[in-house]
Amino acid sequence: MVKTAWNLTELAQYLGVELLGNACHEVSRVATLGQAGPGDLTFLSNPLYKTQLQSTGATAVILHPAMADECPVSALVTESPYLVYATASHLFDRRPQPSAGVHPTAWVADDVELGEGCRIGAHSVLESGCRLGANVEVGSGCVIGAQSKIGNDCVLHANVTFYHNVRVGDRCRFHSGVVVGADGFGFANEQGRWVKIAQLGGVAIGNDVEVGANTTIDRGAIQDTLIGNGVILDNQIQIAHNVEIGEGTAIAGCTGIAGSTRIGKYCTIAGAVGIAGHLEIADRVHLTMRSAITKSITEPGSYSSGTAMSKTGVWRKNAARFRQLDEMARRIQKLEKQIQGRDQSPD
Amino acid sequence: MVKTAWNLTELAQYLGVELLGNACHEVSRVATLGQAGPGDLTFLSNPLYKTQLQSTGATAVILHPAMADECPVSALVTESPYLVYATASHLFDRRPQPSAGVHPTAWVADDVELGEGCRIGAHSVLESGCRLGANVEVGSGCVIGAQSKIGNDCVLHANVTFYHNVRVGDRCRFHSGVVVGADGFGFANEQGRWVKIAQLGGVAIGNDVEVGANTTIDRGAIQDTLIGNGVILDNQIQIAHNVEIGEGTAIAGCTGIAGSTRIGKYCTIAGAVGIAGHLEIADRVHLTMRSAITKSITEPGSYSSGTAMSKTGVWRKNAARFRQLDEMARRIQKLEKQIQGRDQSPD
Amino acid sequence: MVKTAWNLTELAQYLGVELLGNACHEVSRVATLGQAGPGDLTFLSNPLYKTQLQSTGATAVILHPAMADECPVSALVTESPYLVYATASHLFDRRPQPSAGVHPTAWVADDVELGEGCRIGAHSVLESGCRLGANVEVGSGCVIGAQSKIGNDCVLHANVTFYHNVRVGDRCRFHSGVVVGADGFGFANEQGRWVKIAQLGGVAIGNDVEVGANTTIDRGAIQDTLIGNGVILDNQIQIAHNVEIGEGTAIAGCTGIAGSTRIGKYCTIAGAVGIAGHLEIADRVHLTMRSAITKSITEPGSYSSGTAMSKTGVWRKNAARFRQLDEMARRIQKLEKQIQGRDQSPD
Repeated sequence: MVKTAWNLTELAQYLGVELLGNACHEVSRVATLGQAGPGDLTFLSNPLYKTQLQSTGATAVILHPAMADECPVSALVTESPYLVYATASHLFDRRPQPSAGVHPTAWVADDVELGEGCRIGAHSVLESGCRLGANVEVGSGCVIGAQSKIGNDCVLHANVTFYHNVRVGDRCRFHSGVVVGADGFGFANEQGRWVKIAQLGGVAIGNDVEVGANTTIDRGAIQDTLIGNGVILDNQIQIAHNVEIGEGTAIAGCTGIAGSTRIGKYCTIAGAVGIAGHLEIADRVHLTMRSAITKSITEPGSYSSGTAMSKTGVWRKNAARFRQLDEMARRIQKLEKQIQGRDQSPD
Repeated sequence: MVKTAWNLTELAQYLGVELLGNACHEVSRVATLGQAGPGDLTFLSNPLYKTQLQSTGATAVILHPAMADECPVSALVTESPYLVYATASHLFDRRPQPSAGVHPTAWVADDVELGEGCRIGAHSVLESGCRLGANVEVGSGCVIGAQSKIGNDCVLHANVTFYHNVRVGDRCRFHSGVVVGADGFGFANEQGRWVKIAQLGGVAIGNDVEVGANTTIDRGAIQDTLIGNGVILDNQIQIAHNVEIGEGTAIAGCTGIAGSTRIGKYCTIAGAVGIAGHLEIADRVHLTMRSAITKSITEPGSYSSGTAMSKTGVWRKNAARFRQLDEMARRIQKLEKQIQGRDQSPD
Repeated sequence: MVKTAWNLTELAQYLGVELLGNACHEVSRVATLGQAGPGDLTFLSNPLYKTQLQSTGATAVILHPAMADECPVSALVTESPYLVYATASHLFDRRPQPSAGVHPTAWVADDVELGEGCRIGAHSVLESGCRLGANVEVGSGCVIGAQSKIGNDCVLHANVTFYHNVRVGDRCRFHSGVVVGADGFGFANEQGRWVKIAQLGGVAIGNDVEVGANTTIDRGAIQDTLIGNGVILDNQIQIAHNVEIGEGTAIAGCTGIAGSTRIGKYCTIAGAVGIAGHLEIADRVHLTMRSAITKSITEPGSYSSGTAMSKTGVWRKNAARFRQLDEMARRIQKLEKQIQGRDQSPD
């Protein structure tokens, strides 16, 4: 699908949108509304950037019908400009494609099964019993543990690690530094000494899942850790053993989810959220940035914790008062009683 | 120790527990109480799951004497069911074992010393002067820096990185993506310009330490960073230079500890805790999830910081009021004085 | 510059400081003031350690003129002892140096350009079109994506991953597990389904940048993610797509910065700070440990959020009251009105 340039007519057709403007013009790159020049395709989705439309140097703009009149250049008109841009963006992705086949420096166990069109990178390792579907790309330096199964059209970028018995659906993408299937943090305590519990479960990941750089997903203690279809995970997320994440849920970077917690479907969890173990989070819950979640959430909606930012000098005073909050509440109560008592007294 | 199946009599003997039930039955897998079927071993430790005992399909259950009467199947009876399960779990761990010896694609410097029974994985690198004890497993893609020493029976899973001069005791386990011995974050400032300070110390790790995936432990600035015996670290933890962690301390995922802080023995630090630098944390301290610790803790006990979660709309109002806390406290004080003044006035 | 031992006269000359003491003595190692013995160089910068000066066993101490009189051994005298120590520390860094040239197990694409003096480690991979300046060290197991450019005198420690089209200036250092150029977390939502947006920008990193272990810096969506000259980043930091970080800014471990946020110059951001997306942070801003920043900061100064730590029992009561803060504020207001009303009433 990657061509040097797209004629606007064929582009509109490919994207399923209406073209208003010059059918012969071509675009060969993507740029932002403010920076675009001749030959560039851009888009207008966030109304904040509307003021940049008049002066854009782009050859064509993907935008909403309501904006079409104000567009000084060719317009690709759609009710969902951001979504159409998402589709269009891939046409201009010139990410170098690895060669087909198995790189001569890769080490692939004898019994590994590779589907058609797989590209196995330099110095990667596929251990015994792995089974890869068609068109799987394994980047340089990846290690795929024994008995792991990867569906069709998956991409593992360089230096991804799967332990044994990891199962992945189709069209998933794993970024560099991801570790799937490391032991969950399971120990019994014997008079101060930690006794390791073997982590016997695996990890099962659905279709269309993306996992960001350096994110870790531990294997289950007995049953599997489960990542549903269409889940997207940003960088540096920690998913502990036996966590379940429901279909279509999105989680931003640096969030950590402790063991056995079940996250519902279509949740959006912002960055650096912490979720304690053994909780249930309902479907369609939104958690704002850096929330600490220590109780189950049974209703959809948005939830938060934390305090607002202040100048450090001001904050220090307020943070100190936080320690007196309960006492303050009691003093207010006492004052209310005193006032009330006196209002009722016959003075 | 990994066999296809265990006869209950030999299993009870191996675990040092009493068998109540059919001495001839065999178990070949582990399952949860709720999901177990014929041939499965399970355990009951958390009273929450007691209701599942009656209907379990397991062949045998590890449980407390107080539960033995209610067990419908064979029982392995012990005062410490979770601990006994921990021991038993390893009998059923079918993690594929790497082949003995040095993989042909590994690169091992001439002067490296390997103990008996070492298994060195594909594409791993052992630099000059490394010394490994007996039965050390080095996973594929690991890099062990020059002059590092690793004791007996250690496991480094795939893609672990040790810098030079890292010293590790016996029976330690490092999960994928772990980095030990990177430079501490040490810089002097010269009129806005950061001047790097060479990090000349190493890292010294005791016996029976486990380090979770993508956790980082920096080398010391001058002296070593120290991890005591029996310390267990979950995933994505950051241990800065010259931190010391006392024996038997457990730290959950995503926690960060800044430079030169000393953590006592037998502490339990929950997930995503932040501990500032140059602090002393006493023995047997517990820190709850996401606490921010900015002062030393001199007494054992449990410590916390943060706020409870609310619906975002409610939270926003309260978070805004946080900025007025000090002012609120002063207003309460003033009200108290006014009330008191009037109570004492002769009106 | 690494010699076995330095004569104090030549050391003072090299460092540009005054020597008070025995010009013939030699130092061969660095130690802390408290632990130093014969042959050791040490320094006194933090006044807290002043009491250790009298009894130091060091051969020489780098210190401030005001301390020189009290120094019982040779003194290297300077207004900036910590800065001079930073320079001196590198003279005693015995980090093993990798051999020059390309390791026989490295895989380097035909068209890669390597400057003079490059050292390319075992099992590393340099993809097509990479260009490295002079004296670049690439550790074992690194993967450098296609078309990436690295300036002179850079160091990539083992197991660093660069995606394609990453551009780095001179004298930069990347620690193990760093991932530069992974896809930003960009998705459009189509009725619950996440549609990936190709991340077409790159990453541009200035000169004299240090990046700590397991830190991730995502590539831009359309334009580049930008890291300015002299920026220093600790371990496990997450830099999202299209973030810009100004010259000389320092960021401590576990901090996360969401997409398109611009951080000014000469900022100091402590550990585990979270900064939301699309914000502007002014120059010379200091953020204290674990602050959550959800609004732009337009003025230099120090900013914070969060609460102070307490014993968990105490904290629990106060954290619960946090939910009533707005109500408490209203009750105070009401009390004030009641008091005021009565003071004005003719009773």
